[in-house]
Amino acid sequence: MKLKRKEASIIVIGNEILSGKTLDTNSNYIAIKLREKGIICKEISVIPDNENSIIEKINQFRNNNDYVFTSGGIGPTHDDITSKSISKALSIPFEINKLAKKLIENHYSDEELTEARLKMAYMPKGSVLIDNPVSVAPGFNIQNIYVFPGVPKILHIMIDEFFKRIESNNVFYKKTISTTLSEGIVGEFISQIQKKYHELDIGSYPYFKKNSFGVSIVITGDKEAQVKDSSLEIYEYFKKNNGSPKLF
Amino acid sequence: MKLKRKEASIIVIGNEILSGKTLDTNSNYIAIKLREKGIICKEISVIPDNENSIIEKINQFRNNNDYVFTSGGIGPTHDDITSKSISKALSIPFEINKLAKKLIENHYSDEELTEARLKMAYMPKGSVLIDNPVSVAPGFNIQNIYVFPGVPKILHIMIDEFFKRIESNNVFYKKTISTTLSEGIVGEFISQIQKKYHELDIGSYPYFKKNSFGVSIVITGDKEAQVKDSSLEIYEYFKKNNGSPKLF
Repeated sequence: MKLKRKEASIIVIGNEILSGKTLDTNSNYIAIKLREKGIICKEISVIPDNENSIIEKINQFRNNNDYVFTSGGIGPTHDDITSKSISKALSIPFEINKLAKKLIENHYSDEELTEARLKMAYMPKGSVLIDNPVSVAPGFNIQNIYVFPGVPKILHIMIDEFFKRIESNNVFYKKTISTTLSEGIVGEFISQIQKKYHELDIGSYPYFKKNSFGVSIVITGDKEAQVKDSSLEIYEYFKKNNGSPKLF
Repeated sequence: MKLKRKEASIIVIGNEILSGKTLDTNSNYIAIKLREKGIICKEISVIPDNENSIIEKINQFRNNNDYVFTSGGIGPTHDDITSKSISKALSIPFEINKLAKKLIENHYSDEELTEARLKMAYMPKGSVLIDNPVSVAPGFNIQNIYVFPGVPKILHIMIDEFFKRIESNNVFYKKTISTTLSEGIVGEFISQIQKKYHELDIGSYPYFKKNSFGVSIVITGDKEAQVKDSSLEIYEYFKKNNGSPKLF
C-alpha cells in the first residue's frame, strides 16, 4: 500500500501570467520544496486577479488539500485583491491585523505611510503572519491557506523560511535511468516494469540534446528497495540493448 | 461595454511539472499567442498523468471555453494517457486514426514500428490531426479541445502553425508606463484611474533592477482611445511627481 502523504495545491493569481507577459516560476519553486518534504503537489492553477475566480478556486482547493499556497495579489495597489477575496471565500471578517500594521508603520516614514501601503495590513481575521525577512509585504496563514507575494525574489526567501518549519517524515525515493534508446523502442518494456511495480510512479521523458537524443526514466516511490530493484532491471535492459544507460 | 471575446484555457498534463522536475513554459508560449489573437486566457491548470484528473479537468473546461488546449501525455509510453482520457471524458470511442497510423508507418522502418509507437495513432473517433512538421507525435482536435505534445520544441512549431489559421478580429490595445516611484506611492492615484476607466484592465507590476526599482503600469483594453488617454494621464502624473516616466 502507498503511504498516506500530505497533499498540497498551488494557486497563482495574476493577469500578467495569463496574458503571457510573465512566465510563472513561483509554482515551480514551491513544487520543488513540497517534493523535498515528501508532500504531493496535486494541482497548480493560474487564475486572474478577479474576486469570483479567487473565491471559487480557494473553496475548491481548501477542502481537499492539507496545504493551499497562493502567490500574488497582496501588494498595495487596486489590483491586489487576494486577501479580501480569501476573506470572502472563508466568510471571515476582513480587518486590520495589528502586527502587520505595526510592521508597516515601523518600515515607512510618516510621509511614506500611504493609504495604499496601510491597505496591506488588512487580512482575514485570525490570520497569522508569515515571516518576511526582506520586505513588509505581509504574507499570512489562515486555516490551511498560505498566502505569499508574487514577486519571485521575495517569495523565494519567504518560502525558504516557511519550509524550514515543515516536517519531512516521508521523503520520496527516486532513481533516474537515462538511455540513448528512444521512447518508442523502450515503451513496451517500461510498461511491463510499471505493471510489475504498480506502486511506483514511473515517468518517461524524452530528451533532445545537441548531438543526441534519448529518454530519461524517472522512478519515484515510497519504498527504497522497490525503487532500487526496478531501476536496476531497467538499467540492465538498456545495457543489453546497447542503450548506454546511466543510473543516478 | 466590453467586447465579447473568445475565451481559452490551458491544461498542462505531467507529473514532472507537479514534482518540480520541469518548469512549464508551454502554457506561457500558448498564452502569448492567444493574447496576440485577442483571445482571453481564462485559466491554466497543471494536473498529473492521471485518468480521473484529466477527465475531470477536460469536462470542467470544455463547457465554458471556446478553446481548450492540452499539452503533454501523447507520446508512446505507458504514462501517456491524455488521448484515452479525453475519449472517456467525451464518451467517444478510442480508436485508431487511419491518417495518423499511415503517417507513423511512413515515418518508421518495419523494425522501428513498435507497438508503443502505433499506440500514438489511437485517439477519440472523429479527431482531426493538427499539423506537425517535425515529428509524428500526432496532436489532434476533437470538438473544442486541441491536443498538443509536451516537448517544448515540438509544441512551439505546432502552435505556430496552428495559430496561423486562427483569426484575430479584435486585438488588445496596450500601453505600458514605467516609473521610479514605488507601488505604495502611486497606488491611490492608479486606483482612481482604474475607477475612471472601469472598462480597462490596469495592472501594477513592481520591478527590481540592479540599481533601481519602481513599477510598471500596464493598461489593456478594447478601445484604443481609452488606452491612450489613460496612459497619458498616468504619464503626466508620474512626471509631475518626478517619477521619470517612460511610456511605450
